[in-house]
Amino acid sequence: MPEDVRKENLERLNSFVESNDKAGLIKFISELHPSDIAWLLGHVDEDLQIDIFRRLTPEVASGVILEMDEGMRQRVISIISRTELVEMLDEMETDDATDLIGELPVDEAKSVLEGIQKEESDEVQRLLHYPEDTAGGKMQTELVAVPVDATVGETIEEVRRMSDEVENVSNVFVVDHGMRLVGIVPLDKLILAKPHIPIKDIMDAKVVKVDVSEDQEEVARMFKKYDLISMAVVDSGGRLLGRVTVDDIVDVLEDEIFEDFYRIAGLNVDERVLDSPARSVRMRIPWLVVNLGTAFLVASVVKFFEDTIKSVVMLAVFMPVIAGMGGNAATQTITVVVRGLALGELELRHARKVLFKEVTVGLANGIVLGSGAALIAFLLGINYMIGLLLLFSMIANLIIAGLAGSVIPLVLKWFKADPALSASVFVTTCTDMGGFFSFLGLAAVFIRHGLL
Amino acid sequence: MPEDVRKENLERLNSFVESNDKAGLIKFISELHPSDIAWLLGHVDEDLQIDIFRRLTPEVASGVILEMDEGMRQRVISIISRTELVEMLDEMETDDATDLIGELPVDEAKSVLEGIQKEESDEVQRLLHYPEDTAGGKMQTELVAVPVDATVGETIEEVRRMSDEVENVSNVFVVDHGMRLVGIVPLDKLILAKPHIPIKDIMDAKVVKVDVSEDQEEVARMFKKYDLISMAVVDSGGRLLGRVTVDDIVDVLEDEIFEDFYRIAGLNVDERVLDSPARSVRMRIPWLVVNLGTAFLVASVVKFFEDTIKSVVMLAVFMPVIAGMGGNAATQTITVVVRGLALGELELRHARKVLFKEVTVGLANGIVLGSGAALIAFLLGINYMIGLLLLFSMIANLIIAGLAGSVIPLVLKWFKADPALSASVFVTTCTDMGGFFSFLGLAAVFIRHGLL
Repeated sequence: MPEDVRKENLERLNSFVESNDKAGLIKFISELHPSDIAWLLGHVDEDLQIDIFRRLTPEVASGVILEMDEGMRQRVISIISRTELVEMLDEMETDDATDLIGELPVDEAKSVLEGIQKEESDEVQRLLHYPEDTAGGKMQTELVAVPVDATVGETIEEVRRMSDEVENVSNVFVVDHGMRLVGIVPLDKLILAKPHIPIKDIMDAKVVKVDVSEDQEEVARMFKKYDLISMAVVDSGGRLLGRVTVDDIVDVLEDEIFEDFYRIAGLNVDERVLDSPARSVRMRIPWLVVNLGTAFLVASVVKFFEDTIKSVVMLAVFMPVIAGMGGNAATQTITVVVRGLALGELELRHARKVLFKEVTVGLANGIVLGSGAALIAFLLGINYMIGLLLLFSMIANLIIAGLAGSVIPLVLKWFKADPALSASVFVTTCTDMGGFFSFLGLAAVFIRHGLL
Repeated sequence: MPEDVRKENLERLNSFVESNDKAGLIKFISELHPSDIAWLLGHVDEDLQIDIFRRLTPEVASGVILEMDEGMRQRVISIISRTELVEMLDEMETDDATDLIGELPVDEAKSVLEGIQKEESDEVQRLLHYPEDTAGGKMQTELVAVPVDATVGETIEEVRRMSDEVENVSNVFVVDHGMRLVGIVPLDKLILAKPHIPIKDIMDAKVVKVDVSEDQEEVARMFKKYDLISMAVVDSGGRLLGRVTVDDIVDVLEDEIFEDFYRIAGLNVDERVLDSPARSVRMRIPWLVVNLGTAFLVASVVKFFEDTIKSVVMLAVFMPVIAGMGGNAATQTITVVVRGLALGELELRHARKVLFKEVTVGLANGIVLGSGAALIAFLLGINYMIGLLLLFSMIANLIIAGLAGSVIPLVLKWFKADPALSASVFVTTCTDMGGFFSFLGLAAVFIRHGLL
């Protein structure tokens, strides 16, 4: 449905363009959500894109530019004037302004920082010091805080005073005279209390907070665990520095999962689908080179059985079946194990249980699929001894896939490395080597005993 | 750090157990967050787990049981009495109660529904009708709604009246006399307005709402797009039925991504890492059977070149290098493309750009890695014609990997199917067939011309 709404919006935009009604167009567009406006601008040609963007008020434009993809944003920034950019930045929350300024070339960033309001500029410069992937890098400094000896009435007055600056207040933070965080009051509790009551009587002293240097993934996990909407960020002395809000955290949670699967596939986490070919090549080649090395390892196993293959070439024909089944079974195991580790469903203490399970699954699948393979080979009129070989080596191969697919992520986790780290490359090497060794080795034994 | 806190909690729990101080234990535990309590219970033996759980107040217990993993929850439910279960359900929000009752056997669910408070029971029975993966399945009926002719003061009074029942109010919904949703007022706006002002003067009439039958993935996408904390759910007539909150949506967003990669790997989305082996076998075998079929397709390509391999067995030795490189390059492409589609960075209109990019990347990587492979083969003293074969076929293979890895997900998307649907199996088949065909086919040409 929302897809339809977007298309409808695009049609309306085009009809305004055709009738050359710029004023109507801007009026129509300005009433949409910034993310819908950004989508629309991505679907018109570049000149019109810039023309429309520059006609938006700084307030609307500041929301829209944040929702653009990186390519469009960079193009827009390179075209608009410094004044236009500064006007937009003044409208933004500090965390968003910091992210945007962080994307600029150093010279331009400096010049822009001089332009924006003194107070915000100071905050942004402070925020620029925190690494992007920490609580500090995700936090905004806009929040409502009151001293612990304030009353409910004074707190409401403070919310009112800050209402222009702070969006989505959700919670009021309570601090002591050293700016140390001592409590939190959700707005709905504030609304229900009598004005003369001391804020410390209604505050919740068990505040979930996070150190400014904490990794963003840990921050995201805490949001999820405690079902939070916003979380206080403090320095090592417990002093309140800012807050992180749930909308910034949703992206972190998603990125964390994508990173897992990027690592499984041997990809650099920074690669994006619309990157230039040159950039993609640079990012992908390292793991492919590693994979080339491991592929030669696998080849050396086959080389060892050169004579075996020479005497029964049909073995070479079935090698892809062994490798293919092992690879897919391994991918299944890795995916299930990495998901379990990511969600905390699987911990190291479950290692034995998971190993036992995956070996059992490999054995059972090996028997079923090996029998299937043997049957197909038999129906194709191939020597039934080769069918038997397929059965035995498929069992061995699928057990190896279950073992390697679960052991490798668990061992990486044990060594506090990323369990997903290029799992595909390593696990495939194990299953290929084990699969070919059992298939060709067993064939060699069969041949030696005159069975093949 | 939170990991340390959990271990510390576990030690404290154990010291209470050793000194047999049950009262102290319960007091200590009851002050923790439900999700921390559930974690602790998962780390003590089962008898103690149940003993502790039954001593918690229904209010605490109702939070804890929702945070348990499914296995522990089912064991706990099978042991506690119906009265204990009903007491917990009375404390829960309707969406959580519905999910829990939905997990029970039909008989028990009926008996429990009779036990809980009439009002909640009616709501739960209504909610049970909505499929779990729709907006209706995710919504709760606890919310604050006021008629459009209410004043700010009356609205605050309503928030007060509902404060026991509704957690995290965030927004007040405004409805007309037909219960149709006409606006929304965030709490911070409510707190700032004068009591005599009509609510319709401060409400936002542009409400983001969703139809009760909308798929949960679309609901999740809207939360992300509009940075929402809660969203209204309406029926086809626009009448307000309930609201979905962001904490329920975070899990949906994560699940959606995991589902993509489960589908890539040919897995059933319901499989969990600690499932029984029998269940896993049942769930994994269908795609492995498909894969067995495609593996025989690949084998048939090799069979076609049986004589070629017979005359130069070294070709069989290098087959795993071709297959391995193709497989890994394909996995890289699929992963990048599926991520782009999932995040909306990639749309069908970019198809040509992505195809061009992936083919270029395949060509470049093929030249680099093929040259590497040829060099290694040369250094190992292998016929340099085989090195040349490796170079040519690696280029062909990596181009095919780029093509298949991007075309298959895009075509699935075009047909409105899931782009990730078992991409691994199909793409691997393409790269293996193409890779072996180019490698062995070229070898046959070389042999015919006396070059090998």
